[in-house]
Amino acid sequence: MKELDFIKAISQEIGDEFIGDDCAYIKDLGIVISQDSLVENIHFRRDWYSSFQLGYKSAAVNISDILASGAMPAYMSIALSLTNDIDDNFIKEFYRGAKSVSKNIKITGGDITGSKQGLMISITAIGKTTGRNISSRKNALPGYAIITKGMHGSSAAGLNELLTGGNNKALILSHISPVLEFDFSKEISENVKEKYAMMDSSDGLADALFKIAEAGNVTAEIDYNSVPHLDCVTKEQVLYGGEDYKLVACVPENALQKINNYVKIGKIKEFDGSRVRINDFVINDYDSIKSFNHFSG
Amino acid sequence: MKELDFIKAISQEIGDEFIGDDCAYIKDLGIVISQDSLVENIHFRRDWYSSFQLGYKSAAVNISDILASGAMPAYMSIALSLTNDIDDNFIKEFYRGAKSVSKNIKITGGDITGSKQGLMISITAIGKTTGRNISSRKNALPGYAIITKGMHGSSAAGLNELLTGGNNKALILSHISPVLEFDFSKEISENVKEKYAMMDSSDGLADALFKIAEAGNVTAEIDYNSVPHLDCVTKEQVLYGGEDYKLVACVPENALQKINNYVKIGKIKEFDGSRVRINDFVINDYDSIKSFNHFSG
Repeated sequence: MKELDFIKAISQEIGDEFIGDDCAYIKDLGIVISQDSLVENIHFRRDWYSSFQLGYKSAAVNISDILASGAMPAYMSIALSLTNDIDDNFIKEFYRGAKSVSKNIKITGGDITGSKQGLMISITAIGKTTGRNISSRKNALPGYAIITKGMHGSSAAGLNELLTGGNNKALILSHISPVLEFDFSKEISENVKEKYAMMDSSDGLADALFKIAEAGNVTAEIDYNSVPHLDCVTKEQVLYGGEDYKLVACVPENALQKINNYVKIGKIKEFDGSRVRINDFVINDYDSIKSFNHFSG
Repeated sequence: MKELDFIKAISQEIGDEFIGDDCAYIKDLGIVISQDSLVENIHFRRDWYSSFQLGYKSAAVNISDILASGAMPAYMSIALSLTNDIDDNFIKEFYRGAKSVSKNIKITGGDITGSKQGLMISITAIGKTTGRNISSRKNALPGYAIITKGMHGSSAAGLNELLTGGNNKALILSHISPVLEFDFSKEISENVKEKYAMMDSSDGLADALFKIAEAGNVTAEIDYNSVPHLDCVTKEQVLYGGEDYKLVACVPENALQKINNYVKIGKIKEFDGSRVRINDFVINDYDSIKSFNHFSG
Protein backbone atom coordinates (compact mmCIF):
# COMPACT_ATOMS: atom_id res chain seq x y z
CA MET A 1 0.00 0.00 0.00
CA LYS A 2 1.64 3.13 -1.29
CA GLU A 3 0.21 5.45 1.41
CA LEU A 4 1.95 3.44 4.12
CA ASP A 5 5.27 3.74 2.25
CA PHE A 6 4.77 7.48 2.06
CA ILE A 7 4.01 7.71 5.78
CA LYS A 8 7.18 5.73 6.47
CA ALA A 9 9.16 8.14 4.28
CA ILE A 10 7.64 11.11 6.10
CA SER A 11 8.33 9.55 9.47
CA GLN A 12 12.00 9.14 8.49
CA GLU A 13 12.15 12.85 7.74
CA ILE A 14 10.26 14.36 10.63
CA GLY A 15 10.58 11.73 13.35
CA ASP A 16 7.68 10.07 15.09
CA GLU A 17 6.87 12.66 17.75
CA PHE A 18 3.57 13.44 16.04
CA ILE A 19 3.14 10.47 13.70
CA GLY A 20 0.90 7.55 14.50
CA ASP A 21 -2.42 9.11 15.39
CA ASP A 22 -4.90 10.95 13.22
CA CYS A 23 -4.30 14.08 15.25
CA ALA A 24 -0.98 15.55 16.28
CA TYR A 25 -0.94 16.35 20.00
CA ILE A 26 0.94 19.60 20.54
CA LYS A 27 1.36 19.59 24.29
CA ASP A 28 2.96 22.99 24.78
CA LEU A 29 -0.01 24.67 23.10
CA GLY A 30 -2.67 22.48 24.70
CA ILE A 31 -4.09 21.50 21.35
CA VAL A 32 -4.49 18.64 18.92
CA ILE A 33 -4.48 19.39 15.21
CA SER A 34 -5.71 17.39 12.25
CA GLN A 35 -5.73 18.14 8.55
CA ASP A 36 -7.57 16.20 5.84
CA SER A 37 -8.17 16.84 2.18
CA LEU A 38 -11.12 15.80 0.04
CA VAL A 39 -10.65 15.57 -3.69
CA GLU A 40 -13.49 15.62 -6.21
CA ASN A 41 -13.99 12.27 -7.94
CA ILE A 42 -11.77 10.52 -5.41
CA HIS A 43 -13.52 11.24 -2.12
CA PHE A 44 -16.80 12.56 -3.40
CA ARG A 45 -18.86 13.08 -6.50
CA ARG A 46 -20.35 16.55 -6.62
CA ASP A 47 -23.68 15.34 -7.99
CA TRP A 48 -24.22 13.27 -4.84
CA TYR A 49 -24.01 16.24 -2.47
CA SER A 50 -25.73 19.57 -2.07
CA SER A 51 -23.25 22.36 -1.32
CA PHE A 52 -24.47 22.34 2.28
CA GLN A 53 -23.93 18.58 2.58
CA LEU A 54 -20.45 18.82 1.09
CA GLY A 55 -19.53 21.49 3.64
CA TYR A 56 -20.95 19.37 6.44
CA LYS A 57 -19.12 16.21 5.42
CA SER A 58 -15.77 17.94 4.76
CA ALA A 59 -15.86 19.46 8.23
CA ALA A 60 -17.17 16.26 9.85
CA VAL A 61 -14.32 14.16 8.45
CA ASN A 62 -11.85 16.44 10.22
CA ILE A 63 -13.79 17.00 13.42
CA SER A 64 -14.12 13.23 13.76
CA ASP A 65 -10.32 12.98 14.10
CA ILE A 66 -10.44 15.53 16.92
CA LEU A 67 -13.18 13.50 18.64
CA ALA A 68 -11.06 10.35 18.27
CA SER A 69 -8.27 12.11 20.15
CA GLY A 70 -10.65 12.96 22.98
CA ALA A 71 -10.01 16.71 22.64
CA MET A 72 -12.78 19.30 22.45
CA PRO A 73 -13.25 20.50 18.84
CA ALA A 74 -12.81 24.27 18.91
CA TYR A 75 -11.64 25.75 15.61
CA MET A 76 -11.29 24.92 11.98
CA SER A 77 -9.70 26.50 8.95
CA ILE A 78 -10.96 25.77 5.43
CA ALA A 79 -8.94 25.91 2.21
CA LEU A 80 -10.89 25.57 -1.01
CA SER A 81 -9.50 25.16 -4.51
CA LEU A 82 -12.38 25.98 -6.81
CA THR A 83 -13.18 25.36 -10.43
CA ASN A 84 -14.65 28.23 -12.46
CA ASP A 85 -18.24 27.02 -12.22
CA ILE A 86 -18.34 27.64 -8.45
CA ASP A 87 -20.36 30.69 -7.38
CA ASP A 88 -21.05 32.70 -4.20
CA ASN A 89 -24.03 30.56 -3.36
CA PHE A 90 -21.95 27.39 -3.31
CA ILE A 91 -19.52 29.05 -0.90
CA LYS A 92 -22.28 30.24 1.43
CA GLU A 93 -24.01 26.89 1.52
CA PHE A 94 -20.70 25.06 1.96
CA TYR A 95 -19.84 27.22 4.97
CA ARG A 96 -23.36 26.84 6.40
CA GLY A 97 -22.93 23.09 6.14
CA ALA A 98 -19.50 23.20 7.77
CA LYS A 99 -20.85 25.37 10.59
CA SER A 100 -23.75 22.99 11.16
CA VAL A 101 -21.42 20.26 12.46
CA SER A 102 -21.33 22.04 15.82
CA LYS A 103 -22.22 25.48 17.08
CA ASN A 104 -19.22 25.27 19.41
CA ILE A 105 -16.65 25.22 16.62
CA LYS A 106 -15.45 28.52 15.20
CA ILE A 107 -14.28 28.77 11.61
CA THR A 108 -11.14 30.90 11.48
CA GLY A 109 -11.28 31.45 7.74
CA GLY A 110 -8.90 29.85 5.33
CA ASP A 111 -7.82 30.13 1.76
CA ILE A 112 -9.44 30.25 -1.65
CA THR A 113 -7.53 29.42 -4.82
CA GLY A 114 -8.43 28.36 -8.31
CA SER A 115 -8.32 24.82 -9.61
CA LYS A 116 -8.45 23.73 -13.21
CA GLN A 117 -8.89 20.14 -12.28
CA GLY A 118 -11.76 19.69 -9.90
CA LEU A 119 -12.82 20.86 -6.48
CA MET A 120 -10.33 20.34 -3.65
CA ILE A 121 -11.12 20.85 0.01
CA SER A 122 -8.52 20.85 2.77
CA ILE A 123 -9.64 21.45 6.32
CA THR A 124 -7.57 21.84 9.46
CA ALA A 125 -9.32 21.24 12.76
CA ILE A 126 -8.02 22.21 16.18
CA GLY A 127 -9.15 20.71 19.47
CA LYS A 128 -8.47 21.94 23.00
CA THR A 129 -7.01 19.41 25.41
CA THR A 130 -7.72 21.19 28.72
CA GLY A 131 -9.55 18.83 31.07
CA ARG A 132 -9.38 16.00 28.56
CA ASN A 133 -7.37 12.77 28.65
CA ILE A 134 -5.95 12.48 25.12
CA SER A 135 -6.00 9.08 23.42
CA SER A 136 -3.37 7.33 21.40
CA ARG A 137 -3.91 4.26 19.28
CA LYS A 138 -0.88 2.64 20.88
CA ASN A 139 -2.45 2.73 24.36
CA ALA A 140 -4.55 -0.46 24.20
CA LEU A 141 -3.51 -2.97 26.88
CA PRO A 142 -4.44 -6.63 27.37
CA GLY A 143 -7.67 -6.82 29.37
CA TYR A 144 -9.08 -3.55 28.02
CA ALA A 145 -12.67 -3.58 26.77
CA ILE A 146 -13.35 -2.60 23.16
CA ILE A 147 -16.36 -0.32 22.99
CA THR A 148 -18.17 1.66 20.34
CA LYS A 149 -21.40 3.54 19.75
CA GLY A 150 -23.58 4.01 16.67
CA MET A 151 -24.18 1.91 13.58
CA HIS A 152 -21.37 0.38 11.56
CA GLY A 153 -21.52 -0.29 7.83
CA SER A 154 -24.38 2.06 7.02
CA SER A 155 -22.14 4.51 5.17
CA ALA A 156 -20.70 1.81 2.89
CA ALA A 157 -24.20 0.51 2.26
CA GLY A 158 -25.28 4.05 1.41
CA LEU A 159 -22.33 4.43 -0.95
CA ASN A 160 -23.45 1.20 -2.60
CA GLU A 161 -26.93 2.67 -3.04
CA LEU A 162 -25.41 5.71 -4.74
CA LEU A 163 -23.22 3.60 -7.02
CA THR A 164 -26.01 1.20 -8.02
CA GLY A 165 -28.87 3.71 -8.30
CA GLY A 166 -30.59 2.45 -5.14
CA ASN A 167 -32.90 4.70 -3.18
CA ASN A 168 -32.62 3.75 0.49
CA LYS A 169 -32.53 7.34 1.71
CA ALA A 170 -31.55 6.50 5.30
CA LEU A 171 -28.47 4.59 4.11
CA ILE A 172 -27.52 7.29 1.61
CA LEU A 173 -27.79 9.89 4.36
CA SER A 174 -25.43 7.83 6.53
CA HIS A 175 -22.85 8.20 3.79
CA ILE A 176 -23.53 11.84 2.92
CA SER A 177 -24.08 13.25 6.42
CA PRO A 178 -22.52 10.92 9.01
CA VAL A 179 -23.47 11.71 12.61
CA LEU A 180 -20.46 12.38 14.83
CA GLU A 181 -20.07 11.01 18.35
CA PHE A 182 -19.44 14.18 20.36
CA ASP A 183 -20.85 12.83 23.63
CA PHE A 184 -19.07 9.48 23.48
CA SER A 185 -15.73 11.24 22.97
CA LYS A 186 -16.35 13.74 25.77
CA GLU A 187 -17.53 11.13 28.28
CA ILE A 188 -14.47 8.96 27.73
CA SER A 189 -11.86 11.70 27.67
CA GLU A 190 -13.27 13.46 30.72
CA ASN A 191 -13.95 10.35 32.81
CA VAL A 192 -11.33 7.76 31.95
CA LYS A 193 -8.18 8.55 33.89
CA GLU A 194 -6.01 5.70 32.57
CA LYS A 195 -4.31 5.63 29.19
CA TYR A 196 -6.73 4.53 26.49
CA ALA A 197 -6.85 4.04 22.73
CA MET A 198 -9.46 5.58 20.46
CA MET A 199 -9.87 5.87 16.69
CA ASP A 200 -12.70 6.68 14.36
CA SER A 201 -13.89 4.19 11.79
CA SER A 202 -13.13 6.48 8.86
CA ASP A 203 -11.46 3.56 7.06
CA GLY A 204 -13.68 0.88 8.56
CA LEU A 205 -14.00 -1.00 11.82
CA ALA A 206 -11.50 -3.74 10.93
CA ASP A 207 -8.98 -1.08 9.89
CA ALA A 208 -9.33 0.73 13.24
CA LEU A 209 -9.01 -2.52 15.21
CA PHE A 210 -5.98 -3.57 13.18
CA LYS A 211 -4.20 -0.25 13.62
CA ILE A 212 -4.85 -0.19 17.36
CA ALA A 213 -3.70 -3.81 17.72
CA GLU A 214 -0.57 -3.21 15.70
CA ALA A 215 0.35 0.05 17.46
CA GLY A 216 -0.04 -1.58 20.89
CA ASN A 217 1.35 -4.96 19.81
CA VAL A 218 -1.76 -6.72 21.07
CA THR A 219 -4.63 -8.77 19.65
CA ALA A 220 -8.09 -7.22 19.32
CA GLU A 221 -10.89 -9.76 19.64
CA ILE A 222 -14.49 -8.89 18.88
CA ASP A 223 -17.79 -10.73 18.61
CA TYR A 224 -19.34 -9.78 15.29
CA ASN A 225 -22.87 -10.20 16.64
CA SER A 226 -22.31 -7.48 19.21
CA VAL A 227 -21.33 -4.85 16.63
CA PRO A 228 -24.28 -2.47 16.18
CA HIS A 229 -25.50 -2.44 12.58
CA LEU A 230 -28.68 -2.32 10.55
CA ASP A 231 -30.16 -5.61 9.31
CA CYS A 232 -29.92 -4.55 5.68
CA VAL A 233 -26.14 -4.01 5.88
CA THR A 234 -23.78 -6.81 4.87
CA LYS A 235 -21.08 -8.24 7.15
CA GLU A 236 -18.46 -7.02 4.71
CA GLN A 237 -19.84 -3.48 4.95
CA VAL A 238 -19.93 -3.62 8.77
CA LEU A 239 -16.31 -4.75 9.04
CA TYR A 240 -14.63 -3.05 6.11
CA GLY A 241 -16.91 -0.20 5.08
CA GLY A 242 -15.41 3.24 5.69
CA GLU A 243 -16.78 6.68 6.49
CA ASP A 244 -19.15 5.80 9.31
CA TYR A 245 -17.07 8.03 11.60
CA LYS A 246 -18.05 6.01 14.64
CA LEU A 247 -15.55 5.82 17.49
CA VAL A 248 -13.82 2.65 18.61
CA ALA A 249 -12.26 2.88 22.06
CA CYS A 250 -10.20 0.50 24.18
CA VAL A 251 -10.52 1.32 27.87
CA PRO A 252 -9.90 -0.48 31.17
CA GLU A 253 -12.85 -2.67 32.21
CA ASN A 254 -13.22 -0.75 35.47
CA ALA A 255 -13.63 2.53 33.58
CA LEU A 256 -16.80 1.31 31.86
CA GLN A 257 -18.96 2.28 34.84
CA LYS A 258 -18.06 5.93 34.20
CA ILE A 259 -19.43 5.83 30.65
CA ASN A 260 -23.18 6.02 30.14
CA ASN A 261 -23.68 5.03 26.54
CA TYR A 262 -21.55 2.40 24.88
CA VAL A 263 -21.69 -1.04 23.33
CA LYS A 264 -18.98 -3.49 24.31
CA ILE A 265 -17.93 -5.46 21.24
CA GLY A 266 -14.83 -7.29 22.45
CA LYS A 267 -11.58 -7.11 24.32
CA ILE A 268 -7.86 -6.63 23.96
CA LYS A 269 -5.65 -9.68 24.58
CA GLU A 270 -1.95 -10.42 24.67
CA PHE A 271 -0.69 -10.71 21.10
CA ASP A 272 -1.38 -14.28 19.97
CA GLY A 273 -0.01 -14.11 16.43
CA SER A 274 -3.10 -12.49 14.93
CA ARG A 275 -3.92 -8.81 15.07
CA VAL A 276 -7.69 -9.02 14.87
CA ARG A 277 -10.00 -11.93 15.77
CA ILE A 278 -13.62 -11.69 14.69
CA ASN A 279 -15.13 -14.94 16.04
CA ASP A 280 -13.47 -17.65 13.90
CA PHE A 281 -12.04 -15.21 11.42
CA VAL A 282 -8.58 -13.69 11.83
CA ILE A 283 -6.74 -10.77 10.28
CA ASN A 284 -2.97 -11.09 10.49
CA ASP A 285 -1.74 -8.35 8.20
CA TYR A 286 -2.92 -5.04 6.87
CA ASP A 287 -3.02 -6.17 3.26
CA SER A 288 -5.81 -8.61 4.05
CA ILE A 289 -8.15 -5.77 5.02
CA LYS A 290 -10.43 -5.00 2.11
CA SER A 291 -11.03 -1.33 1.95
CA PHE A 292 -14.20 0.31 0.70
CA ASN A 293 -13.38 3.72 1.94
CA HIS A 294 -12.82 5.58 -1.32
CA PHE A 295 -15.08 4.76 -4.19
CA SER A 296 -12.33 5.23 -6.73
CA GLY A 297 -9.15 5.54 -4.67
CA MET B 1 -12.63 39.92 -8.68
CA LYS B 2 -14.36 36.66 -7.79
CA GLU B 3 -12.12 35.86 -4.82
CA LEU B 4 -13.22 39.04 -3.05
CA ASP B 5 -16.89 38.11 -3.59
CA PHE B 6 -16.19 34.71 -2.07
CA ILE B 7 -14.46 36.24 0.94
CA LYS B 8 -17.48 38.53 1.39
CA ALA B 9 -19.79 35.50 1.26
CA ILE B 10 -17.62 33.68 3.81
CA SER B 11 -17.52 36.72 6.06
CA GLN B 12 -21.34 36.84 6.01
CA GLU B 13 -21.43 33.25 7.20
CA ILE B 14 -18.72 33.19 9.85
CA GLY B 15 -18.54 36.84 10.93
CA ASP B 16 -15.40 38.92 10.84
CA GLU B 17 -13.72 37.90 14.10
CA PHE B 18 -10.93 36.16 12.17
CA ILE B 19 -11.34 37.60 8.66
CA GLY B 20 -9.17 40.39 7.32
CA ASP B 21 -5.64 39.20 7.97
CA ASP B 22 -3.70 36.37 6.38
CA CYS B 23 -3.52 34.65 9.75
CA ALA B 24 -6.35 34.10 12.19
CA TYR B 25 -5.34 35.19 15.69
CA ILE B 26 -6.79 32.73 18.20
CA LYS B 27 -6.20 34.59 21.44
CA ASP B 28 -7.38 31.95 23.90
CA LEU B 29 -4.84 29.47 22.54
CA GLY B 30 -2.01 32.00 22.12
CA ILE B 31 -1.60 31.12 18.47
CA VAL B 32 -2.04 32.41 14.97
CA ILE B 33 -2.98 29.99 12.23
CA SER B 34 -2.71 30.22 8.47
CA GLN B 35 -3.62 27.78 5.73
CA ASP B 36 -2.70 28.06 2.04
CA SER B 37 -3.06 25.70 -0.87
CA LEU B 38 -0.85 25.37 -3.93
CA VAL B 39 -2.29 23.81 -7.05
CA GLU B 40 -0.22 22.36 -9.88
CA ASN B 41 -0.44 24.41 -13.06
CA ILE B 42 -2.03 27.30 -11.20
CA HIS B 43 0.56 28.15 -8.55
CA PHE B 44 3.47 26.14 -9.85
CA ARG B 45 4.66 24.04 -12.74
CA ARG B 46 6.30 20.85 -11.57
CA ASP B 47 9.07 21.03 -14.18
CA TRP B 48 10.28 24.31 -12.68
CA TYR B 49 10.92 22.88 -9.21
CA SER B 50 12.91 20.05 -7.73
CA SER B 51 10.91 18.13 -5.11
CA PHE B 52 13.04 19.79 -2.44
CA GLN B 53 12.34 23.26 -3.85
CA LEU B 54 8.61 22.59 -4.06
CA GLY B 55 8.58 21.54 -0.40
CA TYR B 56 10.55 24.64 0.54
CA LYS B 57 8.30 27.02 -1.34
CA SER B 58 5.03 25.43 -0.18
CA ALA B 59 6.14 25.77 3.42
CA ALA B 60 7.61 29.26 2.90
CA VAL B 61 4.35 30.61 1.46
CA ASN B 62 2.59 29.64 4.69
CA ILE B 63 5.34 30.56 7.12
CA SER B 64 5.49 34.00 5.50
CA ASP B 65 1.91 34.62 6.67
CA ILE B 66 2.94 33.76 10.22
CA LEU B 67 5.90 36.16 9.96
CA ALA B 68 3.53 38.89 8.69
CA SER B 69 1.47 38.46 11.85
CA GLY B 70 4.56 38.91 14.01
CA ALA B 71 4.11 35.51 15.69
CA MET B 72 6.90 32.96 16.06
CA PRO B 73 6.50 30.15 13.48
CA ALA B 74 6.35 26.92 15.47
CA TYR B 75 4.44 24.11 13.74
CA MET B 76 3.11 23.12 10.39
CA SER B 77 0.87 20.41 9.02
CA ILE B 78 1.11 19.26 5.41
CA ALA B 79 -1.68 17.73 3.32
CA LEU B 80 -0.67 16.33 -0.06
CA SER B 81 -2.96 15.11 -2.82
CA LEU B 82 -0.75 13.08 -5.10
CA THR B 83 -0.97 11.83 -8.64
CA ASN B 84 0.10 8.24 -9.36
CA ASP B 85 3.55 9.16 -10.67
CA ILE B 86 4.68 10.43 -7.25
CA ASP B 87 7.12 8.13 -5.41
CA ASP B 88 8.75 7.87 -1.97
CA ASN B 89 11.68 9.93 -3.07
CA PHE B 90 9.48 12.86 -4.02
CA ILE B 91 7.91 12.74 -0.57
CA LYS B 92 11.26 12.61 1.22
CA GLU B 93 12.71 15.48 -0.77
CA PHE B 94 9.51 17.51 -0.40
CA TYR B 95 9.63 17.14 3.38
CA ARG B 96 13.37 17.92 3.45
CA GLY B 97 12.62 21.11 1.55
CA ALA B 98 9.76 22.03 3.88
CA LYS B 99 11.96 21.39 6.93
CA SER B 100 14.75 23.55 5.49
CA VAL B 101 12.66 26.71 5.88
CA SER B 102 13.58 26.79 9.57
CA LYS B 103 14.99 24.33 12.06
CA ASN B 104 12.71 25.84 14.70
CA ILE B 105 9.49 24.73 13.00
CA LYS B 106 8.19 21.24 13.71
CA ILE B 107 6.14 19.37 11.14
CA THR B 108 3.23 17.66 12.89
CA GLY B 109 2.43 15.38 9.97
CA GLY B 110 -0.63 15.78 7.84
CA ASP B 111 -2.58 13.91 5.26
CA ILE B 112 -1.92 12.05 2.04
CA THR B 113 -4.64 11.39 -0.50
CA GLY B 114 -4.77 10.56 -4.17
CA SER B 115 -5.47 13.05 -6.93
CA LYS B 116 -6.37 12.26 -10.49
CA GLN B 117 -5.98 15.81 -11.55
CA GLY B 118 -2.60 17.14 -10.53
CA LEU B 119 -0.59 17.68 -7.40
CA MET B 120 -2.26 19.69 -4.63
CA ILE B 121 -0.50 20.94 -1.53
CA SER B 122 -2.27 22.45 1.45
CA ILE B 123 -0.22 23.56 4.41
CA THR B 124 -1.37 24.87 7.77
CA ALA B 125 1.15 26.85 9.79
CA ILE B 126 0.87 27.76 13.45
CA GLY B 127 2.72 30.55 15.19
CA LYS B 128 3.09 31.24 18.91
CA THR B 129 2.13 34.69 20.11
CA THR B 130 3.80 34.69 23.54
CA GLY B 131 6.03 37.75 23.87
CA ARG B 132 5.02 39.02 20.45
CA ASN B 133 2.87 42.02 19.53
CA ILE B 134 0.56 40.69 16.80
CA SER B 135 -0.08 42.83 13.73
CA SER B 136 -3.27 43.57 11.89
CA ARG B 137 -3.50 45.17 8.50
CA LYS B 138 -6.11 47.59 9.85
CA ASN B 139 -3.68 49.07 12.39
CA ALA B 140 -1.92 51.63 10.17
CA LEU B 141 -2.39 55.19 11.48
CA PRO B 142 -1.61 58.57 9.89
CA GLY B 143 2.00 59.48 10.63
CA TYR B 144 3.22 55.87 10.69
CA ALA B 145 6.34 55.05 8.70
CA ILE B 146 6.11 52.41 5.95
CA ILE B 147 9.13 50.13 6.11
CA THR B 148 10.32 46.98 4.38
CA LYS B 149 13.39 44.83 3.92
CA GLY B 150 14.71 42.80 1.00
CA MET B 151 14.31 43.10 -2.75
CA HIS B 152 10.97 43.65 -4.43
CA GLY B 153 10.09 42.44 -7.90
CA SER B 154 12.80 39.79 -8.21
CA SER B 155 10.32 36.92 -7.98
CA ALA B 156 8.15 38.27 -10.80
CA ALA B 157 11.26 38.87 -12.88
CA GLY B 158 12.31 35.27 -12.16
CA LEU B 159 8.89 34.03 -13.19
CA ASN B 160 9.29 35.97 -16.41
CA GLU B 161 12.62 34.24 -17.00
CA LEU B 162 10.94 30.86 -16.56
CA LEU B 163 8.08 31.77 -18.88
CA THR B 164 10.31 33.19 -21.61
CA GLY B 165 13.16 30.69 -21.39
CA GLY B 166 15.57 33.18 -19.83
CA ASN B 167 18.48 31.98 -17.73
CA ASN B 168 19.10 34.60 -15.04
CA LYS B 169 19.61 32.07 -12.26
CA ALA B 170 19.54 34.60 -9.41
CA LEU B 171 16.14 35.90 -10.52
CA ILE B 172 14.76 32.41 -11.05
CA LEU B 173 15.91 31.44 -7.56
CA SER B 174 14.08 34.46 -6.12
CA HIS B 175 10.90 32.97 -7.55
CA ILE B 176 11.58 29.34 -6.71
CA SER B 177 13.13 29.77 -3.24
CA PRO B 178 12.15 33.14 -1.79
CA VAL B 179 14.07 34.13 1.34
CA LEU B 180 11.81 34.82 4.32
CA GLU B 181 12.26 37.73 6.71
CA PHE B 182 12.40 35.96 10.08
CA ASP B 183 14.54 38.63 11.80
CA PHE B 184 12.55 41.60 10.53
CA SER B 185 9.32 40.05 11.83
CA LYS B 186 10.83 39.17 15.20
CA GLU B 187 12.45 42.58 15.74
CA ILE B 188 9.21 44.42 15.05
CA SER B 189 6.85 42.18 17.00
CA GLU B 190 9.15 42.00 20.03
CA ASN B 191 10.13 45.66 20.10
CA VAL B 192 7.21 47.71 18.82
CA LYS B 193 4.72 48.18 21.67
CA GLU B 194 2.10 50.19 19.75
CA LYS B 195 -0.42 48.73 17.33
CA TYR B 196 1.13 48.24 13.92
CA ALA B 197 0.21 46.84 10.50
CA MET B 198 2.24 44.22 8.66
CA MET B 199 1.68 42.14 5.54
CA ASP B 200 3.83 40.11 3.24
CA SER B 201 4.11 40.97 -0.43
CA SER B 202 2.76 37.61 -1.58
CA ASP B 203 0.48 39.40 -4.06
CA GLY B 204 2.82 42.31 -4.67
CA LEU B 205 3.90 45.51 -2.94
CA ALA B 206 1.05 47.64 -4.35
CA ASP B 207 -1.46 44.99 -3.28
CA ALA B 208 -0.13 45.00 0.30
CA LEU B 209 -0.13 48.79 0.48
CA PHE B 210 -3.65 48.94 -0.93
CA LYS B 211 -5.03 46.38 1.52
CA ILE B 212 -3.40 48.10 4.50
CA ALA B 213 -4.68 51.51 3.36
CA GLU B 214 -8.19 50.22 2.79
CA ALA B 215 -8.37 48.29 6.07
CA GLY B 216 -7.21 51.33 8.05
CA ASN B 217 -9.07 53.87 5.88
CA VAL B 218 -5.86 55.80 5.28
CA THR B 219 -3.62 56.70 2.35
CA ALA B 220 -0.27 54.95 1.91
CA GLU B 221 2.33 57.13 0.21
CA ILE B 222 5.66 55.76 -0.95
CA ASP B 223 8.64 57.01 -2.94
CA TYR B 224 9.34 54.47 -5.66
CA ASN B 225 13.05 55.24 -5.66
CA SER B 226 13.37 54.14 -2.06
CA VAL B 227 11.93 50.66 -2.70
CA PRO B 228 14.81 48.18 -2.70
CA HIS B 229 15.04 46.32 -6.02
CA LEU B 230 17.55 45.03 -8.49
CA ASP B 231 18.42 47.20 -11.52
CA CYS B 232 17.30 44.55 -13.97
CA VAL B 233 13.78 44.42 -12.55
CA THR B 234 11.03 46.56 -14.12
CA LYS B 235 8.95 49.08 -12.20
CA GLU B 236 5.86 47.01 -12.96
CA GLN B 237 7.50 43.95 -11.41
CA VAL B 238 8.60 45.91 -8.31
CA LEU B 239 5.11 47.27 -7.67
CA TYR B 240 2.83 44.50 -8.86
CA GLY B 241 4.95 41.36 -8.94
CA GLY B 242 3.90 38.75 -6.38
CA GLU B 243 5.67 36.03 -4.43
CA ASP B 244 8.64 38.00 -3.12
CA TYR B 245 7.40 37.29 0.42
CA LYS B 246 8.98 40.46 1.73
CA LEU B 247 7.33 42.16 4.68
CA VAL B 248 5.74 45.59 4.54
CA ALA B 249 5.15 47.15 7.96
CA CYS B 250 3.57 50.39 9.13
CA VAL B 251 4.91 51.43 12.52
CA PRO B 252 5.06 54.63 14.58
CA GLU B 253 8.02 56.85 13.64
CA ASN B 254 9.36 56.70 17.18
CA ALA B 255 9.49 52.90 17.06
CA LEU B 256 12.01 52.92 14.20
CA GLN B 257 14.92 53.35 16.59
CA LYS B 258 14.16 49.92 18.04
CA ILE B 259 14.54 48.21 14.67
CA ASN B 260 18.01 47.54 13.35
CA ASN B 261 17.49 46.64 9.72
CA TYR B 262 14.81 48.27 7.62
CA VAL B 263 14.30 50.52 4.64
CA LYS B 264 11.77 53.33 5.00
CA ILE B 265 9.81 53.65 1.78
CA GLY B 266 7.03 56.05 2.73
CA LYS B 267 4.41 57.00 5.24
CA ILE B 268 0.76 56.67 6.13
CA LYS B 269 -1.41 59.79 5.76
CA GLU B 270 -5.00 60.73 6.46
CA PHE B 271 -7.18 59.36 3.67
CA ASP B 272 -7.05 61.89 0.83
CA GLY B 273 -9.30 60.12 -1.69
CA SER B 274 -6.61 57.76 -2.97
CA ARG B 275 -5.51 54.56 -1.30
CA VAL B 276 -1.95 54.41 -2.57
CA ARG B 277 0.30 57.20 -3.84
CA ILE B 278 3.52 56.25 -5.58
CA ASN B 279 5.10 59.63 -6.41
CA ASP B 280 2.75 61.09 -9.06
CA PHE B 281 0.87 57.87 -9.59
CA VAL B 282 -2.23 56.99 -7.60
CA ILE B 283 -4.20 53.79 -7.01
CA ASN B 284 -7.80 54.44 -5.99
CA ASP B 285 -9.39 51.03 -6.28
CA TYR B 286 -8.37 47.41 -6.12
CA ASP B 287 -9.30 46.66 -9.72
CA SER B 288 -6.58 48.98 -10.94
CA ILE B 289 -3.88 46.80 -9.37
CA LYS B 290 -2.43 44.56 -12.01
CA SER B 291 -1.62 41.24 -10.53
CA PHE B 292 1.21 39.03 -11.63
CA ASN B 293 1.00 36.70 -8.75
CA HIS B 294 -0.29 33.56 -10.46
CA PHE B 295 1.07 32.77 -13.86
CA SER B 296 -2.25 31.33 -15.02
CA GLY B 297 -4.75 32.22 -12.31
